[in-house]
Amino acid sequence: MKNRKVVLAARPDGQLKESDMRVVEEEVAELGDGMVLLQIEHLSIDAFIRTTFDEAAFHGTAELGNAIIALGTARVLDSRFEGLHQGDAVFGPVCAQEKVALPGVMLQKIDDSQLPARCHLGVLGLTTGMTAYAGMLKVAKVKKDDLVVVSAAAGAVGSCACQIAKLQGATVIGIAGGEEKGSFLREEIGCDSTIDYKQGNVSEQLMELAPEGVDVFFDNVGGEILDDVLANIRPGARIVICGAISQYERVGEVNGPVNYLKLAERNASMGGFTVNYFEQDYPEMQENLGKWVMEGSLRLPEHIEEGIDQFPKALTLLFSGGHKGKLMVAP
Amino acid sequence: MKNRKVVLAARPDGQLKESDMRVVEEEVAELGDGMVLLQIEHLSIDAFIRTTFDEAAFHGTAELGNAIIALGTARVLDSRFEGLHQGDAVFGPVCAQEKVALPGVMLQKIDDSQLPARCHLGVLGLTTGMTAYAGMLKVAKVKKDDLVVVSAAAGAVGSCACQIAKLQGATVIGIAGGEEKGSFLREEIGCDSTIDYKQGNVSEQLMELAPEGVDVFFDNVGGEILDDVLANIRPGARIVICGAISQYERVGEVNGPVNYLKLAERNASMGGFTVNYFEQDYPEMQENLGKWVMEGSLRLPEHIEEGIDQFPKALTLLFSGGHKGKLMVAP
Repeated sequence: MKNRKVVLAARPDGQLKESDMRVVEEEVAELGDGMVLLQIEHLSIDAFIRTTFDEAAFHGTAELGNAIIALGTARVLDSRFEGLHQGDAVFGPVCAQEKVALPGVMLQKIDDSQLPARCHLGVLGLTTGMTAYAGMLKVAKVKKDDLVVVSAAAGAVGSCACQIAKLQGATVIGIAGGEEKGSFLREEIGCDSTIDYKQGNVSEQLMELAPEGVDVFFDNVGGEILDDVLANIRPGARIVICGAISQYERVGEVNGPVNYLKLAERNASMGGFTVNYFEQDYPEMQENLGKWVMEGSLRLPEHIEEGIDQFPKALTLLFSGGHKGKLMVAP
Repeated sequence: MKNRKVVLAARPDGQLKESDMRVVEEEVAELGDGMVLLQIEHLSIDAFIRTTFDEAAFHGTAELGNAIIALGTARVLDSRFEGLHQGDAVFGPVCAQEKVALPGVMLQKIDDSQLPARCHLGVLGLTTGMTAYAGMLKVAKVKKDDLVVVSAAAGAVGSCACQIAKLQGATVIGIAGGEEKGSFLREEIGCDSTIDYKQGNVSEQLMELAPEGVDVFFDNVGGEILDDVLANIRPGARIVICGAISQYERVGEVNGPVNYLKLAERNASMGGFTVNYFEQDYPEMQENLGKWVMEGSLRLPEHIEEGIDQFPKALTLLFSGGHKGKLMVAP
């Protein structure tokens, strides 16, 4: 049986190019004891993937020639693992490919009777809905009447973060590039207002929209946008460092936030997190996210590229911001 | 009656020079209703003073030719304010000079029956002991067995911060420049160990002294030292931004902490503060600080320069680190 996988062909020199990745074909290995053979259905396109491409990597370094790390959902084709059977839906670190044989213990069985399995990459997913939930409710502890700003607001985590803040009764300003994303955020995601960072200074736009300052900033971007929001925080503000997509292509020359002394001036805090630190809260998070999705108060549009050959394009799209909502590849 | 005051002669170009300040003589104004005439006894030499010298200032901008802002203790020479009488000791924003007439409402009466009035600039002072207390106990919430690192540890705030952390049962590593300060910290302040930033890389020294990482970092310095400690934080670490003396002479070109993404990687937080946000805690803070001083478990060596003419030298000394403990001028 053949598999096609996407490997890292070369370490990117700054900005990621599709040609840094390559699709190769291989035979699928024989299924050993405890192993499960999977047909991958959806791959989650996440910023952390890019961070494994550099030698001084943040989440571990990808080896040239190996399948690129990616989380995905899959269907069990064959199983020599007791807990999983043919036809089951699973979630796990399946990597960028069509098929894979993995130890059953690495996989999580998914109930796809009510919602499609791919929701576990998006609105219910660890790197998306769960991350937005942890950042907004466990780190920032957003409450009614907070003035909340979200960067990369039209992205997967950002879209969820905006809606979760609205569900608490906060006022939400989304930052995104271009009017198409702006109207998406106002009309489909429910942001109260939006800032187009391509149309002039973010700090000035923020001063107009939120003259009394920002209570919570959920940052996915870093760089200048982080500094522009720091310039506008209120006393007691909470900054959540969820990601820094503007900096992931410049590992080794990251721009630190020049305005970090505003934290001292305004008695504010900057809290970083990754979702895995909140494992004890997963049941609560899953329950609430599921409830909100079922009742229609939390939705996450999807952008799905078809075919494993589209993986390199999809990953570069994530960094150029050429999508809205959750970006996935269906191998 | 004559007064001699220190004025800003020129806005400093980067590093502060004594010649940026000048002593001038003037007549003391007549005492109006509600005013108090003071003989200033001690002036507190604080880093924030430098931050008022630039046009894009953090705490308000000093006018050329005006007396430089400074907090101090003074003795009442004459009073046309009901609550204060000749001979009383007071604390207030007296500015860098020998005498001043101020509205009585701007002054705080001090009980100097048990401890000298100048303790209200040091170990009991807002910008020193109270600041160390708020940062260590209200922001970082230091507890038993925390591994605590303090930068500018031999300075006034740093010396108090180290001792307050030791009083909670923490292990304390002080960072300071030079072996004289190192032995001062170990022998007089009670640090468990020290790092001399002039003797090689702080991150490497920290890795040796605290291989399991840092729980709390109380930062007075910023710049490279902040980045070096961020590289060594443990999951859940708390960074307190108290000051950034390395950056105060470079307003407009501050170095942001490049390693701030460690906050996300390690679920850590960076909290800024200034003491005035903790006004509701002043009674508790004053009570505990006073108790520790009286029982001898908190002490703050003083470095006092005599004569108002020494004010420019004392302020430059603060930035070159040529002192230990609390730096004051006795006009």
